[in-house]
Amino acid sequence: MKTVNVDLGDRSYPIHIGANLIRRPELLAGFVPGKQVCVVTNETVQPLYLDSCVRSLQAAELEVISIILPDGEAYKNLETLNLIFDGLLNARFNRSCTLVALGGGVVGDMTGFAAASYQRGVHFIQLPTTLLSMVDSSVGGKTGVNHALGKNMIGAFYQPRAVIADIGVLSTLPSRELSAGVAEVIKYGLICDREFFEWLESNMERVMAGDVAALAYCVERSCADKSRVVAQDEREGGVRAILNLGHTFGHAIETAQGYGNWLHGEAVGVGMLMAVDLSCRMGLVPHSLLERTKFLVEKARLPHESPAGMTNESFISLMAVDKKVLNGQLRLVLLRSLGEAFVTSDVDPHLLNQTLDAFRSG
Amino acid sequence: MKTVNVDLGDRSYPIHIGANLIRRPELLAGFVPGKQVCVVTNETVQPLYLDSCVRSLQAAELEVISIILPDGEAYKNLETLNLIFDGLLNARFNRSCTLVALGGGVVGDMTGFAAASYQRGVHFIQLPTTLLSMVDSSVGGKTGVNHALGKNMIGAFYQPRAVIADIGVLSTLPSRELSAGVAEVIKYGLICDREFFEWLESNMERVMAGDVAALAYCVERSCADKSRVVAQDEREGGVRAILNLGHTFGHAIETAQGYGNWLHGEAVGVGMLMAVDLSCRMGLVPHSLLERTKFLVEKARLPHESPAGMTNESFISLMAVDKKVLNGQLRLVLLRSLGEAFVTSDVDPHLLNQTLDAFRSG
Repeated sequence: MKTVNVDLGDRSYPIHIGANLIRRPELLAGFVPGKQVCVVTNETVQPLYLDSCVRSLQAAELEVISIILPDGEAYKNLETLNLIFDGLLNARFNRSCTLVALGGGVVGDMTGFAAASYQRGVHFIQLPTTLLSMVDSSVGGKTGVNHALGKNMIGAFYQPRAVIADIGVLSTLPSRELSAGVAEVIKYGLICDREFFEWLESNMERVMAGDVAALAYCVERSCADKSRVVAQDEREGGVRAILNLGHTFGHAIETAQGYGNWLHGEAVGVGMLMAVDLSCRMGLVPHSLLERTKFLVEKARLPHESPAGMTNESFISLMAVDKKVLNGQLRLVLLRSLGEAFVTSDVDPHLLNQTLDAFRSG
Repeated sequence: MKTVNVDLGDRSYPIHIGANLIRRPELLAGFVPGKQVCVVTNETVQPLYLDSCVRSLQAAELEVISIILPDGEAYKNLETLNLIFDGLLNARFNRSCTLVALGGGVVGDMTGFAAASYQRGVHFIQLPTTLLSMVDSSVGGKTGVNHALGKNMIGAFYQPRAVIADIGVLSTLPSRELSAGVAEVIKYGLICDREFFEWLESNMERVMAGDVAALAYCVERSCADKSRVVAQDEREGGVRAILNLGHTFGHAIETAQGYGNWLHGEAVGVGMLMAVDLSCRMGLVPHSLLERTKFLVEKARLPHESPAGMTNESFISLMAVDKKVLNGQLRLVLLRSLGEAFVTSDVDPHLLNQTLDAFRSG
């Protein structure tokens, strides 16, 4: 088992990475301070891992309930969040209870926000079951739900007590979701870890074949990269924004398509290519970096053009509600070189349109 | 103008108390860091004070929108909260915006929770328009909404940048709401300020007659008392719970009657009498303290018995979902003497039943 520590002062927590961790009662229960535990999962993960998880917690003599949410980004809203509160209140769970998120990013984000809000804050543990949630949403404490007018617009910064990333569970992950996770992995290489980017260029086949050691390394390295950035800027006042490389484009795709039709990682994959493309057009990075990124994105079996029918106008209008927008000005994350990202509002609309043209479908 | 500082490290903030503060643009705008301000109010307060407030903010060249919520505790829920998010997103407000709560406790709690959650946290200012919200919800950062199964079960600890308590607005407050505010004022005397309790015994007529100086003194002293307690225990791990004297009984009344039929302060007034009565029966305080408290409660024209038809069983069952319940055990705030409260789970059910009997209606 490897451990990455997320260093946030009195809100620091460990990420444990290894195989079969979900079946280790002492590991899970060690992070539960009280007696009541509620495992929140979704209807897809439930038949696969809920029993193992509940049994591990019951073995530690805890009172365990579970709440099964419908699966998918389309349900990441206040209404579904209320199902968690219903379950907790019906079971009379008190403010010393612990919520465990057993699932992907949607389950993690909603359970985390429920933990932040239930009785104004209870304990929280993450058991991510997708590669995306292991490398992204497990680190940094962003929790929340979507609003019809924008993604992740309602939420809280709320840190878990621990993240337990059981690499074994990735064996049941649909290959489309594995690809979506790899998109964020490639992103870490681009924004802050050139060596990791180069490792991915040599090892992408192993990763895509589900090699446990290669996946564990991806999770460990990605979490270490992300936690280094988050430790500098917990509440996203500055440098943390570089983690959003490709996300402004990606969120526009997700909003345009309706949540859940494109996976978050798929949208980020294309968005990341767009950001690299724009960085090229602005003369910041060489064209070869765009080619290398495209090579990785294709090996990861990710889409590499915009959804059919999506116009430049719809992109630009949807990008205007991004959380990075400041005083009406669009801000984007771009690259200065491989491994070095920055945030800028100095974007030439002409070049932006060229980039959007270049990725238009068909 | 008087100022009470709430001392919470880097989350400290001032409470300014005085007449006609709402009409002072430099005072309001001085706490707005960005350019976008959203004033949240309700349909009762709107015709009285919204224009003055908006004009003050516009005079400082800010972009101002307003959101009018339906009035009343019955609307303090996730659905109404979403109206605030709708308004902010429709106006494309970004994460450097400021929310101003112009209203009583319900508006303040909902606006505060909206500010805590919108884009994971934006700025927040309170302009309380009721005595209750000036002396209670303005201090301490408790925000949130109700759930059908319990009051204030969903929320956040989130501090405003400032509270501006304009005593002038109390001239339009219905007398029933003035009484409700006085219930919390009496509570401060009971739990931590004997001298203030005695001042109230001599000055209750002036307070109830709406004397501006007497009301300003009540607000200043109550805020100072509360902020002293909150500064010791921001997240209610310990001593802060004494602020809930009478609230466990009171919440049971509010839940049983349906939110909004009894005002919060009215329920707390009876609940506070019950807590003093139980403290008497347990031999902690002399009977004369119960008589003195009843005297103040009656002068404040507050109810002094339970709602008609409410049984001991329904009290006890509703009290079991209180946030102070720990590992299934009811905990109550009681008095050790005038000016000294404590939390205990050592409550004799027989004496508790006697107390509930003593306040039964009719």
